[in-house]
Amino acid sequence: MAAKLRVAVLGATGYSGLELTRLLLRHPQLEKPVLLRRSADSANGNGNVNLADIFPALSGNGRYPLEPLSWPSLKQKGVELLFLATPHEVSRALVPEAVAQGIRVVDLSGAWRLKQDQHRAIYGFKDADAVTAAELTQKAVYGLPELNSDQIPDATLVANPGCYATTVILALAPLLKSELVDREKGIIADSKSGVSGAGKEPSSRTHFVSVADNLSAYAVFTHRHLGEIAEQLQLSTNEVTFTPHLLPIPRGILSTIYVHLKQPMQAAKIEARYRDFYKGKRFVRVFANPKLPEIQFSLNTNYCDLGFCLAPDGQRLVIISCEDNLIKGAAGQAVQNMNLMYGWSEEEGLL
Amino acid sequence: MAAKLRVAVLGATGYSGLELTRLLLRHPQLEKPVLLRRSADSANGNGNVNLADIFPALSGNGRYPLEPLSWPSLKQKGVELLFLATPHEVSRALVPEAVAQGIRVVDLSGAWRLKQDQHRAIYGFKDADAVTAAELTQKAVYGLPELNSDQIPDATLVANPGCYATTVILALAPLLKSELVDREKGIIADSKSGVSGAGKEPSSRTHFVSVADNLSAYAVFTHRHLGEIAEQLQLSTNEVTFTPHLLPIPRGILSTIYVHLKQPMQAAKIEARYRDFYKGKRFVRVFANPKLPEIQFSLNTNYCDLGFCLAPDGQRLVIISCEDNLIKGAAGQAVQNMNLMYGWSEEEGLL
Amino acid sequence: MAAKLRVAVLGATGYSGLELTRLLLRHPQLEKPVLLRRSADSANGNGNVNLADIFPALSGNGRYPLEPLSWPSLKQKGVELLFLATPHEVSRALVPEAVAQGIRVVDLSGAWRLKQDQHRAIYGFKDADAVTAAELTQKAVYGLPELNSDQIPDATLVANPGCYATTVILALAPLLKSELVDREKGIIADSKSGVSGAGKEPSSRTHFVSVADNLSAYAVFTHRHLGEIAEQLQLSTNEVTFTPHLLPIPRGILSTIYVHLKQPMQAAKIEARYRDFYKGKRFVRVFANPKLPEIQFSLNTNYCDLGFCLAPDGQRLVIISCEDNLIKGAAGQAVQNMNLMYGWSEEEGLL
Amino acid sequence: MAAKLRVAVLGATGYSGLELTRLLLRHPQLEKPVLLRRSADSANGNGNVNLADIFPALSGNGRYPLEPLSWPSLKQKGVELLFLATPHEVSRALVPEAVAQGIRVVDLSGAWRLKQDQHRAIYGFKDADAVTAAELTQKAVYGLPELNSDQIPDATLVANPGCYATTVILALAPLLKSELVDREKGIIADSKSGVSGAGKEPSSRTHFVSVADNLSAYAVFTHRHLGEIAEQLQLSTNEVTFTPHLLPIPRGILSTIYVHLKQPMQAAKIEARYRDFYKGKRFVRVFANPKLPEIQFSLNTNYCDLGFCLAPDGQRLVIISCEDNLIKGAAGQAVQNMNLMYGWSEEEGLL
Repeated sequence: MAAKLRVAVLGATGYSGLELTRLLLRHPQLEKPVLLRRSADSANGNGNVNLADIFPALSGNGRYPLEPLSWPSLKQKGVELLFLATPHEVSRALVPEAVAQGIRVVDLSGAWRLKQDQHRAIYGFKDADAVTAAELTQKAVYGLPELNSDQIPDATLVANPGCYATTVILALAPLLKSELVDREKGIIADSKSGVSGAGKEPSSRTHFVSVADNLSAYAVFTHRHLGEIAEQLQLSTNEVTFTPHLLPIPRGILSTIYVHLKQPMQAAKIEARYRDFYKGKRFVRVFANPKLPEIQFSLNTNYCDLGFCLAPDGQRLVIISCEDNLIKGAAGQAVQNMNLMYGWSEEEGLL
Repeated sequence: MAAKLRVAVLGATGYSGLELTRLLLRHPQLEKPVLLRRSADSANGNGNVNLADIFPALSGNGRYPLEPLSWPSLKQKGVELLFLATPHEVSRALVPEAVAQGIRVVDLSGAWRLKQDQHRAIYGFKDADAVTAAELTQKAVYGLPELNSDQIPDATLVANPGCYATTVILALAPLLKSELVDREKGIIADSKSGVSGAGKEPSSRTHFVSVADNLSAYAVFTHRHLGEIAEQLQLSTNEVTFTPHLLPIPRGILSTIYVHLKQPMQAAKIEARYRDFYKGKRFVRVFANPKLPEIQFSLNTNYCDLGFCLAPDGQRLVIISCEDNLIKGAAGQAVQNMNLMYGWSEEEGLL
Repeated sequence: MAAKLRVAVLGATGYSGLELTRLLLRHPQLEKPVLLRRSADSANGNGNVNLADIFPALSGNGRYPLEPLSWPSLKQKGVELLFLATPHEVSRALVPEAVAQGIRVVDLSGAWRLKQDQHRAIYGFKDADAVTAAELTQKAVYGLPELNSDQIPDATLVANPGCYATTVILALAPLLKSELVDREKGIIADSKSGVSGAGKEPSSRTHFVSVADNLSAYAVFTHRHLGEIAEQLQLSTNEVTFTPHLLPIPRGILSTIYVHLKQPMQAAKIEARYRDFYKGKRFVRVFANPKLPEIQFSLNTNYCDLGFCLAPDGQRLVIISCEDNLIKGAAGQAVQNMNLMYGWSEEEGLL
Repeated sequence: MAAKLRVAVLGATGYSGLELTRLLLRHPQLEKPVLLRRSADSANGNGNVNLADIFPALSGNGRYPLEPLSWPSLKQKGVELLFLATPHEVSRALVPEAVAQGIRVVDLSGAWRLKQDQHRAIYGFKDADAVTAAELTQKAVYGLPELNSDQIPDATLVANPGCYATTVILALAPLLKSELVDREKGIIADSKSGVSGAGKEPSSRTHFVSVADNLSAYAVFTHRHLGEIAEQLQLSTNEVTFTPHLLPIPRGILSTIYVHLKQPMQAAKIEARYRDFYKGKRFVRVFANPKLPEIQFSLNTNYCDLGFCLAPDGQRLVIISCEDNLIKGAAGQAVQNMNLMYGWSEEEGLL
């Protein structure tokens, strides 16, 4: 039996990082992961912190100490892969260091997802070592396994996709790659996300009373995930309109996506196109037309669920795409990427 | 001082009917309304039923007996106006009778909203007296006060608009009436509603466990309100795509509406167009660009709130339209129509 | 017709203060209230702030500027009554100043509710002017109109009760005042509140993801409202156990209260005792046994709803007490107190 | 390697049955379970039904046909253990048949939990074969593994405990078994449950609009679980007051339990008593005083979480007990019982 892999996680105290830690703890190919904290986190105390003190839901299965990040210590422990569930500025700073140490990285932030300057500008990076960063930017693999499974296995740095972007790209790729869509008429992604997508930092926007009994749109035309969507689907940002909304639920995303087809089509042909495109892709479920996914169906799973409705004119198409934003939209997809990077079954630890 | 008006309500045991009853009870121009039940409702008991037994929230301000509907009794009590908060089949059957009695009607169902056969077909009426029904269909006034305030005052029958339709029509009218929209590229209304819009009848779809922590799309391309939207805005149903969703909240609607403008415009011009169009319209609030309405802002009010975002290209426009589906989307709008029908201030009893 | 009263509100940017402002704006005996902000609030900007910018739900009915608090300005405007919806430290500091200016006060905080040092200790006041504060403490009237309507009319300072305390005291008073309860066996108040009771300040505790799909108990044996309950009911804190819980809803309180009766009683006698005690009290609704109040029934009203169940042994009694924590538990009760202070009908502006 | 066990489930279309099916599908000691439907269920169609059509969340891992219940078929397939997630009347009728076939049963209903006639009366059984039923009633083992792990391994019929009862019994057993409680003063269990506990049948009570933004008490002094609590803890129903409430969340229970201790104690002693009592019990987590469990912490796990607060007087004790009502309160506990019945690790398939 092969030796188990040792991985580390930085950012386990956030929602995605916690979900990732839970998945890694029960992954059969892994030793118990090393949980890291940033030195800045230690300002409040000098001892090791226990993750179960922050998330009592985790207690009962031993201890989960958070250790300060130290490259020598990681090397000594034999850590080969580092997961970053950190703000993008932190990822931007740490990834070059990790790579220099020979450690592979799956980064859950937006720091390394974009190749084109026009899109990356929105992150406003000021890289200390611009050359290294520029090189890494081009070397990074966008970790959407259903589209990029050929590049992920050998990647040094996998940029794990954004939660919204995953639902939109997976819904559109089968149609755009076969040039069925009339791009002149515009593509619209109207997305709705649970609050965990907004992060754990308390704010007036995430206060229970602000969210409950409410729905709001935000960052229309300006959300960072628009860049990913455009880049991966080879669209201009003038061709796709992306409107995120904040739902009064803890987790889950539903994207309602509108396209015009170039020619009238039959629903059966469209369904066949989806089934064909995702054949053998374990974590995309294509719903039999006219059944539609709902957020509940994919909660607590790594599935992205796709369904659609076709207008009587045969050209207007509404696609519904759902996922759990913390799993297929973050932690589960990160594990899926790791599985590909180490040659394991894509579903290992994810069912 | 003028004598107060006496009105009656049939259907006070539903969500819209209850909300209507609450508004009528505190309306300064009205005597206490007569609350009616259908004879079919009396199968379960032969005495008068008290509405406060059904909705204990209503108790504490006297009694609310439900009387069986009887035209002679209504005439004797001097009822001049009847509100119907009933299924559309019931409204379709009762309105001709009421009109024959000389009683004016505000009907909250979809029975009389549509003039064009192609749209009305979806309701599948089999009218006993087709001539009367056909005449009434053409005589009925679509009760959206912001657009039809010239016809409502003299109407015998006001067809109170659908909840979704109100948000979509009010959002689009200023642009379509001035022919700013490139209709070739299609218009999309992605609407999200609280569960009270689905009615009070228990079903697996309205079970708490089915709705909570969820979002689902339904009736894509087939929802009945599509006909109203098309008719009022003089669009073909091929030009507008309407997707309703069920939100995990009790009440409120947010519609996200997408149009292409024929020419690039400045946001200030668009805002001016909205302000100009709704000048003096008490119950439409135009938000200063780029502020956007949220569902919470209009809950428990008769406002429809409008805001928008304009793409950098100056042509793609996202309009957000919100209302309380039980008030501006039903009961409040019905009261607003009554106010116009009797020459009172439009806001009487609604602030 | 008598001149209208002018009042001022400090703290309109909090949940209770906003609710209070809404009630005052439509109160028929009042001029438009003066809305105040603390000078500390102006650090972020030097102009007048509009309350409708903070709460867009309020827009559409004119402007709501927030002025800096200034005693000369209040006197000049003829303000006779000041509502404080502020943290208790602020109320403790400001009330002596207001009283010195001849301005009456209804204070919504806990600053002046407690007469006994042992209970007040928990607020940890360090009064600059201890003599004045001590005098005012004794002069303050606990503003629970159903119990203290004889003292409120002439009060200079009304201490508006705590939200939890209102539900518990109103549920227990009829039984304790007639000495029906076996206090030896202990009295238990198991209370559950919506999140607005925790205030508007964002924190990890009020983050949507922390509250949704959850229930938690907190401050068991140590909550500040325990002192009010004990003092008003003349109980020792050893005789009453009070356990607050945080509900995943924006507003509303349900308290489940457990007592042992000294002697077995019939339910009809208990109901009669409640009806007798609250005869003529407009804002307490006694439910016919065995019907029980639910939180929904009193939302958006000034009612406190009471109902009960009696054990087969005739001695164990479970009382259910519900209210809207922002209305009967705060702003509505404050208005009710004002109505008594100025000799108006108790329900003025509250129906 | 030992052959895997084959089990069957009747009632997989309910909430508990679905959760059970999910757990059984991934249990390492089991073959794929046989999913059964009652013949009455087939009235709507004569083919096999697929559980994934009813719960689309289940799709993606193969098919889940529901077969009509047939004893010969079960025998032929080698089914040794039958799980019943059915109404209690159904369980009461089927269990004697199953036992006669030599099939062991874990019954999730209340049909076989009670030995004492006074408590069982509330179920109102009219047994066709009273002798068999009476014998089975006495033979049935109450399947609370933390208390009855000595009897469960050899049981033919395990009566899986009620969801509420599990939280209350586990919270009280350590104190009652060591006679620390002053039973004269009464024991109170104030319990709050998510809506899945009310079952999947749509009703006005489980309508989203009835539950959301609400809390209600029900079945005070009359809930069926009171009998289990009394019997297992050897209390009279006059000594324990049980008040269930319906929470606006899909799943989870929090019970707040009140006892008086005979003598003042220190918190450390009480905590030690709990830790000692549950030593080695994998699925009870005792929280370090004064930390308290919350519903979220145990969701989607088989844990029952216990914590407490002690009054300054050292005698009044408030215990908080939480679980996921569908797992530790139903399906997970059923699996835990199976694990004991077949000599596997108690946590097999449950982590």
